[in-house]
Parts: sequence; C-alpha cells; structure tokens
Amino acid sequence: MKIELAFEARMRLASHLPPTPLVFASALSERAGRAIWLKLETTQPTGSFKVRPALNGILSHLDEARARGVIASSSGNFAQAVAWAAKKLGVDAMIVMTSKTSPYKAERTRALGAQVVTCGPSFKERWDTTYRLQRESGRVLVHPYDTSETIAGDATIALELIEQHPGPATVVVPTSGGGMIAGVAATLKQLRPETRVIGAQPAAGGAMARSLEAGKPVDVGGFDTIADALVASRPGDHTFELARQYVDGIVLASEDEIRAGVRFLFEEQKLLAEPGGAIAAAAVLAGKIPGTGDVVCIVSGGNVEPRILQEILS
Amino acid sequence: MKIELAFEARMRLASHLPPTPLVFASALSERAGRAIWLKLETTQPTGSFKVRPALNGILSHLDEARARGVIASSSGNFAQAVAWAAKKLGVDAMIVMTSKTSPYKAERTRALGAQVVTCGPSFKERWDTTYRLQRESGRVLVHPYDTSETIAGDATIALELIEQHPGPATVVVPTSGGGMIAGVAATLKQLRPETRVIGAQPAAGGAMARSLEAGKPVDVGGFDTIADALVASRPGDHTFELARQYVDGIVLASEDEIRAGVRFLFEEQKLLAEPGGAIAAAAVLAGKIPGTGDVVCIVSGGNVEPRILQEILS
Repeated sequence: MKIELAFEARMRLASHLPPTPLVFASALSERAGRAIWLKLETTQPTGSFKVRPALNGILSHLDEARARGVIASSSGNFAQAVAWAAKKLGVDAMIVMTSKTSPYKAERTRALGAQVVTCGPSFKERWDTTYRLQRESGRVLVHPYDTSETIAGDATIALELIEQHPGPATVVVPTSGGGMIAGVAATLKQLRPETRVIGAQPAAGGAMARSLEAGKPVDVGGFDTIADALVASRPGDHTFELARQYVDGIVLASEDEIRAGVRFLFEEQKLLAEPGGAIAAAAVLAGKIPGTGDVVCIVSGGNVEPRILQEILS
Repeated sequence: MKIELAFEARMRLASHLPPTPLVFASALSERAGRAIWLKLETTQPTGSFKVRPALNGILSHLDEARARGVIASSSGNFAQAVAWAAKKLGVDAMIVMTSKTSPYKAERTRALGAQVVTCGPSFKERWDTTYRLQRESGRVLVHPYDTSETIAGDATIALELIEQHPGPATVVVPTSGGGMIAGVAATLKQLRPETRVIGAQPAAGGAMARSLEAGKPVDVGGFDTIADALVASRPGDHTFELARQYVDGIVLASEDEIRAGVRFLFEEQKLLAEPGGAIAAAAVLAGKIPGTGDVVCIVSGGNVEPRILQEILS
C-alpha cells in the first residue's frame, strides 16, 4: 500500500470523523502486568470502524455514487456504515443481506435510509446477488475489505495512533478478511517500523493464520464463532499480500477466551464491545501477546445484540 | 477553593492516574444538534471518578494514614475507591456500610482488601458508626465530598478538561453532595471564566437545586432514585458555598430521563454508565441544557449492577 493513499484517506475523512480516542485500560493493564491501551472504534457513528472504509470508498467515487447510487454486501457492521456514509453524502444505498441476517441488524440498516435486499442464506448467494444487482443497476460497488480504498480507509486508524501513542508498542488487530490489519500494518511498518503488529482471529476459523503459514490465501470453509464480525473464510488477495509483507504474527482466540474478553471489557472497563471487537483485548487477557512493553488493542466495534451480551455475561 | 489546591492535587495524582479521555459523542451530538463530548471517568480504576478524591485524601495525610490506617463511610463508589487507593499506597482501610448496601458492592470492596463494617440501615447510623470507630481507632477519616482535599481531588477533572477541550463549552456535572461540581466549577470559573457549569441532579431529590434557591443548604430528607450514587439529602457546607459562588444552574432529571440516558449511552455510544454517571448525558438527551455550542458531560461512573442494567435496557 502506498502510504500516500492513507494520507489521502485521512484528508477525505477529516471533516466527517474526528479521531477515535486511545484510552489507557487500567484494569486490563493491572491484570496483564504491562500498559494496555484501547483504541475505541466503538465510538464511531454506527458503532464500528467500518465507517472509515465506507466513507473512503464512497468519497473516492463521489460523483459517480451520487449519480448512480452505491451497493454493498454485508450482514453486519459494514452495512450500517455504508448506509450511514451514503446518507451523510446524499447518496442512495442498496445493501444485500442474506436471509440469515438478524432482523436487528437489517432494521438498523433500514433505519439509516438504505434499501435492504435479502437473498438466500449463503455467503456465495450474497455475493452472486450483489454482483448481479450491481451489473443491472450500474451502482458503485463498495467492497468491505479487499480494495485499496477500503484498506486506505482502515489505515487512518494507524495514522491517528502514531499521534496518540509515542511508541514503541505491539498493536493487536481483530482480523477477518484482513482489511484492517492490512491497512494498519502497512502504515505502521512504513512510518514506525519498530512497531509490532499482531492479528487476533477466532481459533474456529483462523483463515489468515493458515494462509500466512501456507504462503497463499487459504479458504477454511464455513465455521461458527460468537465473533460474528470475523467470519471471512478466506483473506482477500490484496489484504493477504499486505499481511504477508507487514504482519508479525496472528494469534488465535478460543470462543471462551473471546467471551472472557467481552466480559472483562464490560465489567472492569465499562465498555461495550462485540465479540469480534473484543478479540484483541481477549488475546491480551489470555496471555497470548508475547513480549513486554505497551500494547494497543483495537476495539473495532460494539454492535452486540442484547440477548448475546446477556448470554455472555451470565 | 484556592486554585493552588487543584494544582497540588494534580501533581499528587499524576503518577497514579493518567488523565481520563474526553470522547466526542457522535450519536448524542447528532441527536442534540450540537457537539457533545463525554469525559469518561468510567475508565478510572474501580470504575468511577472517586479514586481522585480518595487518593488525594490519603496522599495528603500519607504518613498518618500509613501509621494508623484510614476509615471511610460509603455504600458505593467511594468505598471501592478508598479501598483501591489504600491498597496501592500500602495503607489499611476500614469502610462502614449500611445493612442496605448491596452484597455486590460490599464484595467488590472486600476484594480490594478493605475491612467492611456493617451498621444499621440509615444514613445517620452509617455516620454515627463511622465517627465512633474513627475516635476509637484513631484512623484518618477520608470524607466522600465535603473537605478541601476531596474537592481538590475532584477539581483535577477540570484541569484535564482545560487541556482537552479548547472551549468555550457548557460543562454538565452529576451532582449529589456537591464535591465534584464544587471542584469542577471553582476551577473552571477561575481559569476559564467563559465556561458555563451546570449540575444535573435527580428530580426525586434535588437537594442542591433547592439549596441554591433557598440560599442555604437544605435537607430534603430521604428519597428514592435509580441513580444510587446521587442520594445525598443535603449538600455539604463547603460544597454548597462553592456551588453558590461558581455554578450557573442545576437541571433536574426525572427517573425516566435518567434511564433513557443510560440506554442511549449503552446502545448508541457503547458505553456502560451507571444511572448517576449517565445523568449529565440524560439531561442533554432530554433537551434540558440551554444555549448552543459545545457541551461536555462528565460520565462519572459505570458501576451498575447487572440486574439493574438489564431492567433499564428491557
């Protein structure tokens, strides 16, 4: 990733999104025996970091998007983020969701003014439907993780972090399709190479971990995890290449470890994080981040359904 | 309050407590039609701002406290804060709680190493027991709100705020006995007089509001509120004087408005605040903060029992 893309994204986003806070986590630091910091993407509009790639994706093609609308495929945070960004920019948005999408998430997306199209239950059907509707409508496709605009949008997290933490640090990044870790790692390694960048991924899937071991993108097939934001079965081609070049390692968190992370952030840090958003903190709590010195956990989102939260806390 | 006391408190606290974050609240700002900022005291050790006055109280008499221990009277956040501060400073702590104190809070206080003494159910019995044990034991009394050390500890919130927000702003402060609003208002009005300082108090009690109207401290007697951190029936003498001198007004929030504030912070801002901690945001949400321009809400604590939270969210 050319670092200029990250700087350009930051300039584009500047008037829409103030930097998210980097918060010292006193209870987690005490537990871990080292200084732990939390980068709170949960404070973003729609409750996750996804407004960064959504806004950068639309702003990079704004005239076209205003003329023809945008289309995106997502069952979760990216759907709400695209809907929010489109509304803010006066752009019509269509979101394709599978029939398995929770009514709660579909409703929140509709409430932001987007048109929600429901297709069959599989990941493949979702993408087939998205590409078909994109061709038929001529809408601009906004990809959730594997384009340079998306990755550059995610990279703005790292640009903020460089101003907020003096370094050196180990930065732990929730990982699924790889957009966030690609953008964050590429930026940090170019601008502050002494930073270590570690991905955290549900052990149930582990697609990025296995892909890095194999030296090429691996599809691990369907899997179940409570971290419903981290369910990509294969990294993107671009994100994989960047991860191979820049990422120091991936740690895997079990379902119990992820739940413990959500619980700890909630009870001790008074922060609501969804399972996927809590996975970096969960990895710290489980003692899985090697080395000493400061750790920055990206808390990527907070959109957990009440009944899931209740189940985790009980 | 001599402003030097606030600066001294900050120097004392600096190596123990990093500044708490000031976070832009995008969803609340959108709702309110003005920029709303949240000062997150929920990120403090033990989950509330009370570690500031507790630490400043003990550090101001450290040799004595180490030799003879400390005693405090509280049923909630101050109990945990004193226990935490005492443990950190190698000081023995005794906390007097009434028989009505929730087992959850007593347990969290004991877990921090403090000795918990239980007395009869009333506020008066709690103080009678505290003063008696203080005389018998010679322990140093740490007062929750009405001493210059406490008020100066609370004032450090305002010193941080001045560095974090360029001003001008309206600052909304949860109000009970008045320690926090006294320290915050006295500091802001001396160092940045264009700031407006508004207290937010449960309408069920409203002791500070009625006292300011009456021109003297008024005892409103017992009352019920979900904001169990804001139950003082009368402001302190010192805090009242400072409030009279420096505070621009008090707004009252109904029980429903307080609940709505907790819900909004939880669902839209992904923050866990207890009812008393959410009351400033609740007042904003209810449209009760007059004027235009930026508003800073102090989110004073996040220690809400799971069953209370569940009741509020359902």
